[in-house]
Amino acid sequence: MNKIDIEVSEVGPRDGLQSISQIMSTESKKRWIEALALAGIPEIEVGSFVPARIFPQLADTMEIAKFAKTIEGLKVAALVPNLKGAENAILAGVDKLTIPLSVSETHSMRNVNRTHDQMLDEVKRIVELIRDLPIDERPLIEGALSTAFGCTIEGSISEDRVVELAEALMEAGCSEVGLSDTTGYANPVQVKRLIGKVWDAIGRDHLTGIHLHNTRGQGLANVLAAVEVGLTTVDSSMGGIGGCPAAPGASGNIVTEDLVFLLEAMGLKTGIDFDKLLDARDVVARALPDVELYGFTPNAGLPLGSSLA
Amino acid sequence: MNKIDIEVSEVGPRDGLQSISQIMSTESKKRWIEALALAGIPEIEVGSFVPARIFPQLADTMEIAKFAKTIEGLKVAALVPNLKGAENAILAGVDKLTIPLSVSETHSMRNVNRTHDQMLDEVKRIVELIRDLPIDERPLIEGALSTAFGCTIEGSISEDRVVELAEALMEAGCSEVGLSDTTGYANPVQVKRLIGKVWDAIGRDHLTGIHLHNTRGQGLANVLAAVEVGLTTVDSSMGGIGGCPAAPGASGNIVTEDLVFLLEAMGLKTGIDFDKLLDARDVVARALPDVELYGFTPNAGLPLGSSLA
Repeated sequence: MNKIDIEVSEVGPRDGLQSISQIMSTESKKRWIEALALAGIPEIEVGSFVPARIFPQLADTMEIAKFAKTIEGLKVAALVPNLKGAENAILAGVDKLTIPLSVSETHSMRNVNRTHDQMLDEVKRIVELIRDLPIDERPLIEGALSTAFGCTIEGSISEDRVVELAEALMEAGCSEVGLSDTTGYANPVQVKRLIGKVWDAIGRDHLTGIHLHNTRGQGLANVLAAVEVGLTTVDSSMGGIGGCPAAPGASGNIVTEDLVFLLEAMGLKTGIDFDKLLDARDVVARALPDVELYGFTPNAGLPLGSSLA
Repeated sequence: MNKIDIEVSEVGPRDGLQSISQIMSTESKKRWIEALALAGIPEIEVGSFVPARIFPQLADTMEIAKFAKTIEGLKVAALVPNLKGAENAILAGVDKLTIPLSVSETHSMRNVNRTHDQMLDEVKRIVELIRDLPIDERPLIEGALSTAFGCTIEGSISEDRVVELAEALMEAGCSEVGLSDTTGYANPVQVKRLIGKVWDAIGRDHLTGIHLHNTRGQGLANVLAAVEVGLTTVDSSMGGIGGCPAAPGASGNIVTEDLVFLLEAMGLKTGIDFDKLLDARDVVARALPDVELYGFTPNAGLPLGSSLA
């Protein structure tokens, strides 16, 4: 495999599907994930190990995760809000558990009904569970700091608090932390500053990824800020579907298709084939005919003479 | 007036209106320009001095320009493709003439039916015309290098050619040059590199502005690149309306509303009041009910606790 500069982590099957009312069939999810992997997407967050009554859209996460694990070379990630979810994720054999910790405690209560201390205790229990596994079966654990750039309920978020919680997550045993702009509040100056502060506290190797929303159209500008300072993993969602149901007004992940164009046009290798990415978009369009797909590059097409074509 | 870090130059009344089929009434244009100025937009490109048979949408440019000149403190710009247009612009008393020179000679032929040499000769004639005016009545002359980042007909564009034409425009007597991504081909690395090359050739003071399209969703990332290296004027269009009728597939200026949010959120002062900007958007929405207005921030609203609110 050729060298990759930036890893695009597709979160559509989790973050996208959880926030739309239409339910994608299990077969369509499999075809979508297959098409994404075929296009060269290196990592996919395939679902969330939560009770089906909370997100019926993701009730088949176990089957989807097991299927995704049959695809050679694909890193399979899943969201787990608690120990029970982690147990299921381990059963499915996923490579990475993402545990959300909302820096806004109000948002944390609404989203998972837990305080910061309760979430950190849950992280510790998950870490203990994983330490009992043989070394080569242990998934990575990412502590995902959501609402890190602002909260629709609390407003602005203290950057010191973000740093403290990043440290607490590492102390609890996470492999790494990630920053999430759950609400689409981030701006490029803030992105660079906050990454720097977290790096100063926990080291560059322990924060490599960012999850940005395009709620106010700032998504790709924020990506540019993040990759300019040296982050190497960027979450995105095919067609920009998704958002956060517990943060009113916050909708729309950044669009995978436009993100890949941005990175490749700048000379940053993603390992992704753009035409095959559009094939995966077609799978989504057919499976969710009533859901609006965002993204400009799919409609405009690649520039004449683009190296991506 | 407070210090402004970045000048937002609204091009909707020209670039926006010329590329939609619906014609905005003269009265609506006046109300729109008035509302934009009231919101603090410092410069507006109010129209194009071209024959009405080419752009019937802009047939009232003389009246609009004269009206705009009655608004105190507003810099009034207009596009002029030739000497006749410049004569009319001078009659209207505009502050700045923008003369387009497409780096793609194929695009230049299709857009204004002139070669590079013919356009440069026209620029020289306009410069002579202006030199005959009293010093305090002379408008600025911007040579706008369109298709500077790529052309839908020719494909990639030589950066050396952009630099040569920037030098030629300055030698012909322009006050400054601007770079235009007419086709939405630009990426942030290219934006920074090309600005640097042009600065090396003609000096920083003679390139301060950039005109970006959002055809592939890259507009604000490219703005970030431009302001990071130090450009101080950014063109945009309210609601993102507009494009270039002679460059097939190229549509959509960057959205003024999202641009202002980006800049202000980064701490760059624009002098613009966001709520009043939305009032101006309402004028457009009412005047052009069949035209889709783009932009995310108007729908999502400002972040809770935003200093812009």
